[in-house]
Amino acid sequence: MPDARFAGLTPLFAPRSVAVLGASSDPTRISGRPLAFMKAQGFQGALYPINPNRAEVQGLKAYPSVADLPETPDVAIVAIAAEIAEKSITELAERGVKAAVMFTAGFAEMDEAGEAAQHRMVAVARKHGMRILGPNCLGVFDARTAYYATFSSSFDSGWPVLGRIGIASQSGAYGTHLYTLARNRGIGASLCIMTGNEADVTVGECIGWLAECPEVDVIAVYAEGIRESPGLIAAFQAARAAKKPIVMQKVGRSELGTKAAKSHTASIAGDDAVTEAVMAEFGVVRARNSEEMLDIAHTATRKIYPARNTLGVITVSGGAGVLMSDVADAVGLPMPEMPEATQKMLRDLVPFCAPRNPVDATAQVSNDVKLIHTFTEAMVKEGGYASVLGFFSMTASSRRWPGIREQVNKVREAYPDRLYVLSVITTDERRAELEADGWCVHEDPTRAVTAIAAMGRFGAAFAAPAGAAPPIVSPVTLPATTSSEAEAKRLLAAAGIQSAPEQACDSAEAAVAAAELFGFPVVMKILSPDIVHKSEIGGVLLNVGDVAAVHDGYDLLLARGKRAAPTARIEGVLVAKQLQGGVECILGIHRDPVFGPIAMFGLGGIFVEVMKDVVFRRCPFGDDVAEEMIRSIKGAPLLLGARGRPKADIKALAHMLARLSAFAHAAGPRLASIDLNPVIAMPEGHGAFAVDAVVEVG
Amino acid sequence: MPDARFAGLTPLFAPRSVAVLGASSDPTRISGRPLAFMKAQGFQGALYPINPNRAEVQGLKAYPSVADLPETPDVAIVAIAAEIAEKSITELAERGVKAAVMFTAGFAEMDEAGEAAQHRMVAVARKHGMRILGPNCLGVFDARTAYYATFSSSFDSGWPVLGRIGIASQSGAYGTHLYTLARNRGIGASLCIMTGNEADVTVGECIGWLAECPEVDVIAVYAEGIRESPGLIAAFQAARAAKKPIVMQKVGRSELGTKAAKSHTASIAGDDAVTEAVMAEFGVVRARNSEEMLDIAHTATRKIYPARNTLGVITVSGGAGVLMSDVADAVGLPMPEMPEATQKMLRDLVPFCAPRNPVDATAQVSNDVKLIHTFTEAMVKEGGYASVLGFFSMTASSRRWPGIREQVNKVREAYPDRLYVLSVITTDERRAELEADGWCVHEDPTRAVTAIAAMGRFGAAFAAPAGAAPPIVSPVTLPATTSSEAEAKRLLAAAGIQSAPEQACDSAEAAVAAAELFGFPVVMKILSPDIVHKSEIGGVLLNVGDVAAVHDGYDLLLARGKRAAPTARIEGVLVAKQLQGGVECILGIHRDPVFGPIAMFGLGGIFVEVMKDVVFRRCPFGDDVAEEMIRSIKGAPLLLGARGRPKADIKALAHMLARLSAFAHAAGPRLASIDLNPVIAMPEGHGAFAVDAVVEVG
Repeated sequence: MPDARFAGLTPLFAPRSVAVLGASSDPTRISGRPLAFMKAQGFQGALYPINPNRAEVQGLKAYPSVADLPETPDVAIVAIAAEIAEKSITELAERGVKAAVMFTAGFAEMDEAGEAAQHRMVAVARKHGMRILGPNCLGVFDARTAYYATFSSSFDSGWPVLGRIGIASQSGAYGTHLYTLARNRGIGASLCIMTGNEADVTVGECIGWLAECPEVDVIAVYAEGIRESPGLIAAFQAARAAKKPIVMQKVGRSELGTKAAKSHTASIAGDDAVTEAVMAEFGVVRARNSEEMLDIAHTATRKIYPARNTLGVITVSGGAGVLMSDVADAVGLPMPEMPEATQKMLRDLVPFCAPRNPVDATAQVSNDVKLIHTFTEAMVKEGGYASVLGFFSMTASSRRWPGIREQVNKVREAYPDRLYVLSVITTDERRAELEADGWCVHEDPTRAVTAIAAMGRFGAAFAAPAGAAPPIVSPVTLPATTSSEAEAKRLLAAAGIQSAPEQACDSAEAAVAAAELFGFPVVMKILSPDIVHKSEIGGVLLNVGDVAAVHDGYDLLLARGKRAAPTARIEGVLVAKQLQGGVECILGIHRDPVFGPIAMFGLGGIFVEVMKDVVFRRCPFGDDVAEEMIRSIKGAPLLLGARGRPKADIKALAHMLARLSAFAHAAGPRLASIDLNPVIAMPEGHGAFAVDAVVEVG
Repeated sequence: MPDARFAGLTPLFAPRSVAVLGASSDPTRISGRPLAFMKAQGFQGALYPINPNRAEVQGLKAYPSVADLPETPDVAIVAIAAEIAEKSITELAERGVKAAVMFTAGFAEMDEAGEAAQHRMVAVARKHGMRILGPNCLGVFDARTAYYATFSSSFDSGWPVLGRIGIASQSGAYGTHLYTLARNRGIGASLCIMTGNEADVTVGECIGWLAECPEVDVIAVYAEGIRESPGLIAAFQAARAAKKPIVMQKVGRSELGTKAAKSHTASIAGDDAVTEAVMAEFGVVRARNSEEMLDIAHTATRKIYPARNTLGVITVSGGAGVLMSDVADAVGLPMPEMPEATQKMLRDLVPFCAPRNPVDATAQVSNDVKLIHTFTEAMVKEGGYASVLGFFSMTASSRRWPGIREQVNKVREAYPDRLYVLSVITTDERRAELEADGWCVHEDPTRAVTAIAAMGRFGAAFAAPAGAAPPIVSPVTLPATTSSEAEAKRLLAAAGIQSAPEQACDSAEAAVAAAELFGFPVVMKILSPDIVHKSEIGGVLLNVGDVAAVHDGYDLLLARGKRAAPTARIEGVLVAKQLQGGVECILGIHRDPVFGPIAMFGLGGIFVEVMKDVVFRRCPFGDDVAEEMIRSIKGAPLLLGARGRPKADIKALAHMLARLSAFAHAAGPRLASIDLNPVIAMPEGHGAFAVDAVVEVG
């Protein structure tokens, strides 16, 4: 079922009629280019230049104003000075125009006055149901329909190659760069949308529209910072439901990059790790650069997305085989060995071949083209690989190639459900032939492996069962301000999040009784709503081992508390069971300004602070996702019984993490953060317990 | 001073006369191609086909046998069947031929008989001072002199582009792939050597010869596994001394890759981490794939290697600026900000520019070419960047480009000591013009940044002062077999490696006395030459806190020892001071079959086992290198006072590591491994102590 929010963008991205405000007679000027492009390429809809000074623009009848148009156009291109743009937006909205593409710059990216003007324009547009792309944007084009609401200079050097990739980019210059690279490589991308300031239409909504566009199979995205969550999430969901892969380049990964992003646009360069977690949640693959993005997008147009990807490599160079194995390993793409019997069969045919996988067919095989068929078929049929990569280097430039091509094509045709990729050095003509046959062709074998791995990640996401439902927690009523540890623990306990057994004690005798109840050793902490950072004032005693030590400890903590904070209300001492033999973890929540509450999981202390070995996920989620998160960190072996350690109670830990995510979700926007640090994951069957808890209310 | 070992390869790589054994009249056959290539390209030396069945081969007088040649050729190409090759090698060696290039396959890569034949040939060659390239190799070519001792089929599609890159590759197929990619990109690589089985000449020696070859500025290497250390080390030293950068692709990084390598050749796929450490030691840059290798090699031919690299970016796209900043951050290339005053000056000129760095000059600037000059000059002159990268995307294809080119060239000419790189999409012709101007041109901005970063790594290695001398240790006499802990500690103590204060005690009373001397708590360990893994039998007691506990502990350990190993000689108990407040580290040595003793440093336990956060280095080395190693691990902040921890005694730790490296070096090849696990690095000024030590003798 199409999402109304995305369907509403059709007048913007696929209009039947286009007005151009400030249309110029000079086809090289920014305000002249859209008409020039659309005329040159044969746009079939109505074109209405608006220019009060001319009766005709580029051979088309011109109109003095929006009011004079004979019909209400679907979209208006606004290519006029900032000073008069605001007035025009009002006229367009009042006329009932459904969408505007604003090239005009000088708004939020410039100064506060510009930002205010931008807000006013959006308010007017929303009142009348008009959508705005931009301002300060390079617009949109669809080469299929010759709709060119853009002034990109890239068409000086050629028109787009038609094809089923759709591009959505926040940056105009980089979007054009990307599309031009695609065109120069002969990769078909008919649609390209560049969002600029995103005063109204966001990159997320553009992705959503592309996900529902029947002419698009694959979506390539360039983003600097995500401004709103609902559009992006709905778009990711729509694309996954339609089994359309999204490959995304997200910049601002580093601190340096984030600084540069801030000086560049008025973008919220949101926390990169959070955006990456949201991408991972929906199987969106992150590309490191434009080449990788195009490699992946182009390979994806074959529409083969193995749910369980495996790679079989056939090579004429053992060295290249090793290289491809290295990359497959690095990107987590399995390369199972060929069946023993098949290996033997191949060795019987070619004594010096290496038939394991990579299958080194040796140069001998490329001399006998029938053997190439035997080898390749054995890999597909007996090896059962979902993806087959042939490294033939320059063989594809040789005289023998037509015969080889015929043999490998026979296999491809017999088993059309596999992904077939070639790494060859050849001419543009031969490459085009092979692409037409149904192969993906890459010059570099490592780039081929990376693209193949991405197909498996798409396939896994498309095939994934719906995750378990998040745990149901009671409605959460947050306190007015950041609470004491005890209050935090009570709140969390109501959501089913267990703390270590503990007891508030208002005398040394009560403390001794509690310790005897729990068993020694115990932990003792000063209990005061006015002392938040207890460790810093010496307010925590660990490993308190006997009755006398508890007695002395009580007095010591009270004395330390009074010395450190003479006016603090001191309610006594908290006595807790000291948990032994468990693994220290950290569970946390922080509120992302765009995506709301985000859960974090990591191992205790150093692993989070120094090694940055953590995983993030949008709240809420179920136990299965929580367990996946726990297993995904590099230090997971510590919880899974590395080096003869006892296995930790992963199930209990996952359940706590899922409950925490549900709690955070239910708590609403006043919740700023939660820190459960540490949580002790006890050995299997013995649960997981929060030892300290802070719930921060914003 | 040239190395005789490398100079001796000149007849092989730059001969004045060439014989071809088994020369064929058919220029398409393997044994016909070398003559065909050399004739086509005009080799100036003498060519001697040897073929008993013909008077003439390809228009040249042929000779029936080696003995019939009118002079002794510098090199002979052996392109005959394996069965008769061995005899021919003997004839060549006895005739005094200085070098042979063996295409012939069927030796060590095939079976044991082949390996034996290979050994015999090398023995004969060594006796007569003849060097052998191969067997089973694709040979060598030098396009400058038209010396083509190769049967590569790549010349079907074109001749090499002349240039100052030299290639050395262990794989023939991949070497050819690489050279063909270079040629297709217009990158000049005149020399290419492919070593095959490396029965005699190794890839290391080839690198050494290229390092001394006056026609080569940059060395590109492809390797699967290093077979011998002295040649490679000497070659790396020679290249560094000559300030010739080496960029190297080393495959077999993963377990999967190593498995594939073993099935491919008879190569020792040595420990990848060790080879990487040796590369790092000499400033050899590792490339991930052939594209990166060529990017770096090509950029290096500009011969600008900044010792302290910094990057200034000028861009027409803010988004691309962010992307380049991300990559610079990831590869450790600093991008300092422009001086405040210069930023203000630029903002005064172009109000909406972002002048910080990346400098987003905005599209406005590319309309006013003089401003481009002002911006670029400001970056070079005031910003002082060692490297300047301009992202101009498609601007270089536009009508305005010639004017822009003139302006940026003015800056380049005025400050010729900087590295100038452009990221543009343009035609091959314009790219060639820019390259001729002195720019490095990359289409992809991320690849440009990676290549620029490599220039700084070369520069840093060339400028690095000679490291401190390794500590001098007394001659080491290893025991006959793997020793007890106490013996290991005595050995190491003689080399200045301190253990925690400890005392061997043969009674409970002696143990108590020792504990009282050291102060409580202490560690107690069973003392027996027959019990190596003490922890496993419960033979170690930690945190022994008072006199009674020491007394009981003594009896307990003896009882456990007897129970676990009834026949073991038990000498008593070792009492040691329990070190508190330090950081646990692991210092180790293992003997690499190729590179000899290799030192390892990491933090204790989990950091090594699970996080793999370790660093390796060839022994011996001085304190400065040791400290660099310690600081290079990801967990180093733990030692450097992260989160208010005390700083560890890094100097003492580094000194211990350097001494350990000197000890390992002095101990000779019988030393199999050393484990100092844990070593406790105490707070600054309080030293570092080995708590346990195992010295394994092989």
